[in-house]
Amino acid sequence: MEMMTNSLGRRVPAEVNGQKKQPFRGIGKFQPTGRKTGPPIPSGANFTASKVVDSLDAALDRLHLFNGMTISFHHHLRDGDGIVNIIIDKLAQRGLKDIVLAPSALFPVHEPIVGHIKNGVVSHVLGSMNGPIGRLCTTGGMKKTAILRSHGGRYRAIQDGDLHIDAAFISAPTADTHGNANGVLGPSACGPLGFALADSLYADQVVVITDNLVPFPTWPWSIEGGNVDWVVPVEKLGDPGKIVSGTTKIATEPDRLMIADYAARLVRDSGLIDEPNFSFQAGAGGMSLAFVQYVAQYMREKKVVADFVRGGSTKALTDMLKEGLTRFILDGQSFDLDGVQSLRENPNHIETNPFVSYNYHTKGCFAPRVKASVLGGTEIDLDFNVNVNTHSDGWLLHGIGGFQDAADAQLTIITAPLYRKTNPIVLEKVVTVTAPGETIDAIVTDHGIAINPRRQDLLDRLKGSDLPLVSIEELHEKAIAATGVPAKPRFKDKVVAVIEWRDGTLIDSVYELDPGQ
Amino acid sequence: MEMMTNSLGRRVPAEVNGQKKQPFRGIGKFQPTGRKTGPPIPSGANFTASKVVDSLDAALDRLHLFNGMTISFHHHLRDGDGIVNIIIDKLAQRGLKDIVLAPSALFPVHEPIVGHIKNGVVSHVLGSMNGPIGRLCTTGGMKKTAILRSHGGRYRAIQDGDLHIDAAFISAPTADTHGNANGVLGPSACGPLGFALADSLYADQVVVITDNLVPFPTWPWSIEGGNVDWVVPVEKLGDPGKIVSGTTKIATEPDRLMIADYAARLVRDSGLIDEPNFSFQAGAGGMSLAFVQYVAQYMREKKVVADFVRGGSTKALTDMLKEGLTRFILDGQSFDLDGVQSLRENPNHIETNPFVSYNYHTKGCFAPRVKASVLGGTEIDLDFNVNVNTHSDGWLLHGIGGFQDAADAQLTIITAPLYRKTNPIVLEKVVTVTAPGETIDAIVTDHGIAINPRRQDLLDRLKGSDLPLVSIEELHEKAIAATGVPAKPRFKDKVVAVIEWRDGTLIDSVYELDPGQ
Repeated sequence: MEMMTNSLGRRVPAEVNGQKKQPFRGIGKFQPTGRKTGPPIPSGANFTASKVVDSLDAALDRLHLFNGMTISFHHHLRDGDGIVNIIIDKLAQRGLKDIVLAPSALFPVHEPIVGHIKNGVVSHVLGSMNGPIGRLCTTGGMKKTAILRSHGGRYRAIQDGDLHIDAAFISAPTADTHGNANGVLGPSACGPLGFALADSLYADQVVVITDNLVPFPTWPWSIEGGNVDWVVPVEKLGDPGKIVSGTTKIATEPDRLMIADYAARLVRDSGLIDEPNFSFQAGAGGMSLAFVQYVAQYMREKKVVADFVRGGSTKALTDMLKEGLTRFILDGQSFDLDGVQSLRENPNHIETNPFVSYNYHTKGCFAPRVKASVLGGTEIDLDFNVNVNTHSDGWLLHGIGGFQDAADAQLTIITAPLYRKTNPIVLEKVVTVTAPGETIDAIVTDHGIAINPRRQDLLDRLKGSDLPLVSIEELHEKAIAATGVPAKPRFKDKVVAVIEWRDGTLIDSVYELDPGQ
Repeated sequence: MEMMTNSLGRRVPAEVNGQKKQPFRGIGKFQPTGRKTGPPIPSGANFTASKVVDSLDAALDRLHLFNGMTISFHHHLRDGDGIVNIIIDKLAQRGLKDIVLAPSALFPVHEPIVGHIKNGVVSHVLGSMNGPIGRLCTTGGMKKTAILRSHGGRYRAIQDGDLHIDAAFISAPTADTHGNANGVLGPSACGPLGFALADSLYADQVVVITDNLVPFPTWPWSIEGGNVDWVVPVEKLGDPGKIVSGTTKIATEPDRLMIADYAARLVRDSGLIDEPNFSFQAGAGGMSLAFVQYVAQYMREKKVVADFVRGGSTKALTDMLKEGLTRFILDGQSFDLDGVQSLRENPNHIETNPFVSYNYHTKGCFAPRVKASVLGGTEIDLDFNVNVNTHSDGWLLHGIGGFQDAADAQLTIITAPLYRKTNPIVLEKVVTVTAPGETIDAIVTDHGIAINPRRQDLLDRLKGSDLPLVSIEELHEKAIAATGVPAKPRFKDKVVAVIEWRDGTLIDSVYELDPGQ
């Protein structure tokens, strides 16, 4: 495998699965060429009969299926998904081999795919792998190299023609007989369906699978029937309790609350909260929810109304919308039932997709318009490079999610405890770079806040703040003092996965872990 | 010019402006090949500064402008548009020549373009020409051949790569600093902006022009900022009084009311109104509005709720929505202020665009899901071919609009008086075929209703109806008896324009009119 060195000094392959790749060069340094791709031109003449077929098998009968084909799924049903495993089982029963699996993400519920990779039905995965399939990948269990992409990066790859999908299977909480589909109605309502948008627009064949088939028209049309070949009603899409939580739970641990408050005070003391067009993004973890409550309180005190808050929607955000603390929620996925209900009912709760929010190969997505973004990570190093994919012991257990994209905010804050059990979070070098330090502005820990020295403007803004500012080196020393220097994982030479930066260049490689460990 | 004969016996060119063309073969007979086109892949790296520029000139300074380039506009501002003329003037001042003008439609307000065609700034028009520019075209005044397309056909041509747009200028009643734009807010609110969607998705360069620039985000995003290069605030887009009428006016003439009631009774007596999933489409003319009132009354009597009505929205339709006579309005353009207000405020009034409604090169658009479509025409012949483009005297004065697309309804009804002044509407042969008889099901006149004999099923359904059914030949005879046999226009051999069927094949040619007439 011919390797290249990218601008971070990381070694990445020159070619992945036969496709030439570019090394990461720094933010905004790679200029794409060529034109966006397009799916085959269809004709209405071939869609005069009903698109609704009786069963998944009936749909599969009508598809062009072949060995080595690439199939895709979205992950809005998360760990409650009941469709991916069934489709792969059925393709296995039909004798298909070497399927390339291109989901937006896989979850622990998809563990049965491990068997299908081992028996050759599935060749490799082009997408995020949370849990068991990532574990298999780490030990070299896939026939070819996995590619991890951010939400925006996946849309980009499909749009630019790097990721060609032969058949997309789109689970839809509601679909009409024309194939229009959304995620806000029906017993499996999950909120937005944006992760499936690129698949619907660019895949050669598109199947919508629903447990709530209704007459034309349903509304909204997150997926448009004009891009859909077949509609399959099924009894259920999955386990609604695992598709969205009933409610997301705010942190209660004092150290987590302290980190959340530090982050909120950092946003406040930076002055961003007072400037026109305030907006922020935070996740659905307990610490993020606490951050939202703190920042909302500082907004109330300063009588600030945000232009928008970026979801992953949760009750924390929908409460802000109801209270008038923000004009809009721009939502990429709903994490709890309040998020789903608000998206369905509140006209200022807007469904978005990775094209508008995160795709770097657009004439601007809205990610850089977010003023403050609060994100988590598994490791951060002295150069502020962040790792969200592998653990310090080398296991690839997480997807990128929207991390690289959300890090485009004007103030990107990583919140994390300084160490987890015996693992320091601040390290000399991260095992895997998910996002380069130049895009990370601050790390907020329970032992102080380090501002990226590249952001002198931010340091200037924080003069007079009583926040406990420290250097990243100090954080590192404190972490090591508490945990000791951790053992480094031992890797073989084989690249089992690559991490794409959102512009399609390679930012890092994931190596096969030595099983001796 | 090499000519071909199409399946209607009409002679059409084998090549138009250097591009190979296919002859019309009958509905659904042409199968497209290849893939949809795509615009150049942009990079967010080139969109880190503001997109908002001071003036139209500042925007033009930033565009790649060249002789022979194709530029486009939408026509949602109709005869109130104040932007097209200004842009062409500015391009003329910059010395550009041979511009190909590809608007969705031109109106009488655009008469100044006649001068720019004569002086070589504009070469020819690829789009609908209502009025003076059509008149110029008819006498051979354009350098190359004009191409007329339906709303769906224009989207198809852009999507399929037949119509490449170098720069699109999109007038937007509201736009935010990111380029997201809609037509429901602001002083020039016009309703939907769907006619500009394909331009925004596929043009190389996209400029949004607005008289209501707002902070990010505005909502809805009929045009997405991720497709927009520049945003230009201007004082006003045009004349709001001519963009939408205050109110559209229902017919009062007894013969027009009779035709409208015949059409409504035809829909009722056909039984379509009683079947599940009723829906219909009608226009904004006085007779269409009367039809809506009659059909609404029959729906009330039969306690029918439509699944949707297709707009062109008017007060007649928004009243139906408010009354609960339809679940949805699916709106392509708003014709009066009630239509605009309803689209802005009523969540069941849905904005559509030609991709979802009319584009034949999709996996189905919703046009064939419309049960009954009521349309007008300038001529209809014994084969039920309809002409909406030229007058009987040979002048090309109208665009296709959505005619070809709306004729895909299950019951397509042409309403027309049997003759206008000395012009019979039913003729032996129409001057120009806009839509083939096989897609036209009935013609309703003040002298009786002719059902297309191809629709024996419809004739069967109408047994027992007291509607005055007659043959098309009888209508023709009655018309001629009243008007005499009209003089035929005298044409030269030169093809000045071609009429594309919605699948991209050529259904007819428009010839240069002999000026001796």
